[in-house]
Amino acid sequence: MTEPLYELAHLGHAELLTPVYDESLAFFTEVYGLDLVHESGGSAYLRAWGDHDLTTLKLTAADRAGLGHVAWRAVSPQALERRVAALEERGTDGEWIDGDFGHGKAYSFIAPSGQRMELYYETEKYRAPVGKASYLPNQPQSSVSRGVGAARIDHINVLADDVPGTRAFMCDTLGFKLREHLIPPGRPEAGAWLSLMNKAHDLAITREPAPGVTGRLHHLAYAVENREDVLRAADIFCELGVEIEFGPAKHSRTQGFFLYVLEPGGNRIEVFSGGFHIFAPDWEPVTWTTEGQGRSTAWGLDVPASFHSHATPVLP
Amino acid sequence: MTEPLYELAHLGHAELLTPVYDESLAFFTEVYGLDLVHESGGSAYLRAWGDHDLTTLKLTAADRAGLGHVAWRAVSPQALERRVAALEERGTDGEWIDGDFGHGKAYSFIAPSGQRMELYYETEKYRAPVGKASYLPNQPQSSVSRGVGAARIDHINVLADDVPGTRAFMCDTLGFKLREHLIPPGRPEAGAWLSLMNKAHDLAITREPAPGVTGRLHHLAYAVENREDVLRAADIFCELGVEIEFGPAKHSRTQGFFLYVLEPGGNRIEVFSGGFHIFAPDWEPVTWTTEGQGRSTAWGLDVPASFHSHATPVLP
Amino acid sequence: MTEPLYELAHLGHAELLTPVYDESLAFFTEVYGLDLVHESGGSAYLRAWGDHDLTTLKLTAADRAGLGHVAWRAVSPQALERRVAALEERGTDGEWIDGDFGHGKAYSFIAPSGQRMELYYETEKYRAPVGKASYLPNQPQSSVSRGVGAARIDHINVLADDVPGTRAFMCDTLGFKLREHLIPPGRPEAGAWLSLMNKAHDLAITREPAPGVTGRLHHLAYAVENREDVLRAADIFCELGVEIEFGPAKHSRTQGFFLYVLEPGGNRIEVFSGGFHIFAPDWEPVTWTTEGQGRSTAWGLDVPASFHSHATPVLP
Amino acid sequence: MTEPLYELAHLGHAELLTPVYDESLAFFTEVYGLDLVHESGGSAYLRAWGDHDLTTLKLTAADRAGLGHVAWRAVSPQALERRVAALEERGTDGEWIDGDFGHGKAYSFIAPSGQRMELYYETEKYRAPVGKASYLPNQPQSSVSRGVGAARIDHINVLADDVPGTRAFMCDTLGFKLREHLIPPGRPEAGAWLSLMNKAHDLAITREPAPGVTGRLHHLAYAVENREDVLRAADIFCELGVEIEFGPAKHSRTQGFFLYVLEPGGNRIEVFSGGFHIFAPDWEPVTWTTEGQGRSTAWGLDVPASFHSHATPVLP
Repeated sequence: MTEPLYELAHLGHAELLTPVYDESLAFFTEVYGLDLVHESGGSAYLRAWGDHDLTTLKLTAADRAGLGHVAWRAVSPQALERRVAALEERGTDGEWIDGDFGHGKAYSFIAPSGQRMELYYETEKYRAPVGKASYLPNQPQSSVSRGVGAARIDHINVLADDVPGTRAFMCDTLGFKLREHLIPPGRPEAGAWLSLMNKAHDLAITREPAPGVTGRLHHLAYAVENREDVLRAADIFCELGVEIEFGPAKHSRTQGFFLYVLEPGGNRIEVFSGGFHIFAPDWEPVTWTTEGQGRSTAWGLDVPASFHSHATPVLP
Repeated sequence: MTEPLYELAHLGHAELLTPVYDESLAFFTEVYGLDLVHESGGSAYLRAWGDHDLTTLKLTAADRAGLGHVAWRAVSPQALERRVAALEERGTDGEWIDGDFGHGKAYSFIAPSGQRMELYYETEKYRAPVGKASYLPNQPQSSVSRGVGAARIDHINVLADDVPGTRAFMCDTLGFKLREHLIPPGRPEAGAWLSLMNKAHDLAITREPAPGVTGRLHHLAYAVENREDVLRAADIFCELGVEIEFGPAKHSRTQGFFLYVLEPGGNRIEVFSGGFHIFAPDWEPVTWTTEGQGRSTAWGLDVPASFHSHATPVLP
Repeated sequence: MTEPLYELAHLGHAELLTPVYDESLAFFTEVYGLDLVHESGGSAYLRAWGDHDLTTLKLTAADRAGLGHVAWRAVSPQALERRVAALEERGTDGEWIDGDFGHGKAYSFIAPSGQRMELYYETEKYRAPVGKASYLPNQPQSSVSRGVGAARIDHINVLADDVPGTRAFMCDTLGFKLREHLIPPGRPEAGAWLSLMNKAHDLAITREPAPGVTGRLHHLAYAVENREDVLRAADIFCELGVEIEFGPAKHSRTQGFFLYVLEPGGNRIEVFSGGFHIFAPDWEPVTWTTEGQGRSTAWGLDVPASFHSHATPVLP
Repeated sequence: MTEPLYELAHLGHAELLTPVYDESLAFFTEVYGLDLVHESGGSAYLRAWGDHDLTTLKLTAADRAGLGHVAWRAVSPQALERRVAALEERGTDGEWIDGDFGHGKAYSFIAPSGQRMELYYETEKYRAPVGKASYLPNQPQSSVSRGVGAARIDHINVLADDVPGTRAFMCDTLGFKLREHLIPPGRPEAGAWLSLMNKAHDLAITREPAPGVTGRLHHLAYAVENREDVLRAADIFCELGVEIEFGPAKHSRTQGFFLYVLEPGGNRIEVFSGGFHIFAPDWEPVTWTTEGQGRSTAWGLDVPASFHSHATPVLP
């Protein structure tokens, strides 16, 4: 049998584009509860209190919303080289870049679904200054209860015109494992949920509803510590005037407890908790044949139409 | 740099010995909430509702309590062969055995700390019969609310006369990663917490208080889904007449939310939830220099003396 | 100022009618988690583990679903007499009945909204037999984790053609306090939430959608201990094949965390937790002028159409 | 039978004395999460976000810690007059005072246990200014997540040399209901838990350990919304350098989930959630005959010695 690859460690960071930089920055700091670590060149670098890396979100002023890039951290410099070799062997047209605030050199390429992705290894860890250090030395800093208090970066959901092609690319070249997918009878694969190690998903790939469109973002998710924190977040969003698009409720796939809002720039942001864990190295992907199997959400809550249609960049 | 090894996937199962087989079996099924899958040769094979493997606990009648063995599942047949080669290269005196109910051939050896361990790859997955299947196809069966409803096997804590020697062995030959350890000034290393992938610990190694004694078990832990479930378990233990030794409270190391009882045979059993996750492939082990740093538990609850002295087998 | 009346203590019990007695009884015992205490004359008498009274639900075989009656317990025999006098002074046409399994003589009358109601004082308390007694002597029995494990009777929601008239009757004659009501501009009062002491509601009166129809039940609710228990209940309903109509989510009025299903007979049953408490004796009723003020549910979840149309008995 | 009295509505407010006013004020605002409403005459007036009254805590600079007074709100002006008459009939030596910031005239007297108490009716309700109003009009203001975010005043525990005499006074003159008491065999009554309406306790009276001492405070408690919030509070206290004296754990009496710390002035403060509710108007007081019955806490956690010895004022 082919051995599973454990060469990428985790979702490292994402860059979100926003046409309303100041409003988006206020949302991520005051409402979502991230800390601003650095600001330069039209970009803000942010982190959640439970992130061990210096920064996990780059927010960049742009003429429209969307995903600037998403970056995956390799488990070692050698693994990084091997994954780049695998990409190039497959004919991927990428290039090395010098890195950015918070991380070293990275290999940048375009996924088959059109999103820019980066692989990197060298990273800067967060060192809490006096006054921010946690009483627990195994925690990067004191928890933050500002706004919803997002705790750590968790996963990303991109859209793809060709779901099976994109997931095969991610699995074959980068070692993602297919955990679950949705194949409605007689229709193309509608979604695939992939992960690197023990999570139910680090990357979700769902079907782009607009023909011929590529590279769009469905949502970016940070985790909170438990389901009560997601319920609390719902109240906080309401208190702060942020409209809830969907949730809190439980997904059937991944079993994650979710809550979705749009940040002022239009990108969809999730507050997430839970999700089952996967320990079996030979996990058999779960094939959901219809939305109705297990309902479209676990408890039967209908998915709002916007959840199937809205993505960033918004189409003209 | 040396690359991290991802060759073992998870704690596969443990065998507990008990001098009061019937009482222990009643505890694990009626109180802890496991399902009995099979019984033969003086052993019961049990599983938690969230375990994807057919069985994760073997309970064996014996003249005294303790750990029969603990088994780790490799990520592939090739990884299994490589880890056995590494063990043998280090001079470990092990042997292949035919397997057991629920899994195939295994390599059996004695860890430096004296416990029997097994490595294996071939396993039998649980297939829920009609009436036990979950409405969620990504869950091995319907959840069980009998007793405390333990959800899945989580970690094990063994005692070792030589903590650093044992952890070095586990890390070097098997790819465990050191996450945290406790080194009181001027005293030997008192504990080490190791994991394989994203958990804060799959294996804890703490110091054997009795000189010259080897091979003892401190505790075996199954996880429940959240902290409320641990609080619920405390009530259920009290309702069912099981004395709580320690907890519910929060550990400073691993940040796990815990509750400990002794099963009728005397083995310490934990109900566990949470624990932080580790995604960094270059995690820097956290060195706790005193018990007092961060308290012996996170919120300052004193550790009962029995927690430092009781282990199985009980010393004469 | 008029003094507030504290003459009724709590919702004592309700009688539900069902055309499918066996299926309804199986639902309430196996799914909802009530205990069957007694069965006679085509009726089952049930209780939740946290109810201090012997029985809080009477389930009666009938040709259609609906509310047999709902009973309120007075704080004293004297208060009972005073409330009956107040009813009679208002011209209410009631009568004394001998009582029933679990309670003594009661005054039975028809509310302006058409539901039969009873007032009583003498009740039989539950005395747990050996094996069911809780380890906590202030709890009527050990908690039950069968099915969703409903913990205690909480509130009832009846429909009324004339909401303000019905609530005025309940307040003036029986001492209910108006806590919140919904008066959409230019439309009749759509709902009123009333309570007796510290709860946000013991009784909800919402508008009957069918003209000229009286006496219908919207839902009966038992409480569970926390919001995690409501989330757990959602999974259990799904595992047991019971379709969820609405929730889990948070109501804006009462702030209760809710989950609704229909029992096999068609009566709507809620699993409820939380709700704010009211301590002020001069609470100023909150007037909600539109559904949209605070959304129809707290976090914006739409109310399903069935929630506004379905009630029991079902109209021909 | 004697009818139960419902003439007092709730614990209105408490005045705490502190020898370190600035530090105590910082604790209550920044750590405990109360809002400062007013400051005058050496006193600060504070409120929790869920309090419907303008202020529930008066913090007063003094030469030593302790309870300035505790105030109970009557259900009506008439009930206030009746309770004062009952006090005077019993020979209580009290006097009318003009009121204070937040409430009108009050009757001030010394309880048999030595604490100053007040009865009052006229109160000022909190009206949230723009920017503090909640999105839920039935909530006095937006929730506060600063520090532990105490939600509303809940109960007080005073010490008494003569527990049964004190509770009889409170029950007979003011209508408190005895819910539970602890009478160790052969020893004086060690504690009594009393409430006014549906709570398990508004007032606890426990035995003064020092002979001849009167008027001391054991603790004042504010509630949070659920047990997860108590667990969160434990982390927050640790992060902010506040030592936890006791908990989080579950009391056997009241079943409250608790966490105790000392504020800088030395007064013991609780973060509380839960507790069972009492609806029966003829509740039979639960007599605990030994601490060991149901353990001294529900799950067996030992009570620290300081919890039995420390009170304010601290004895010389």
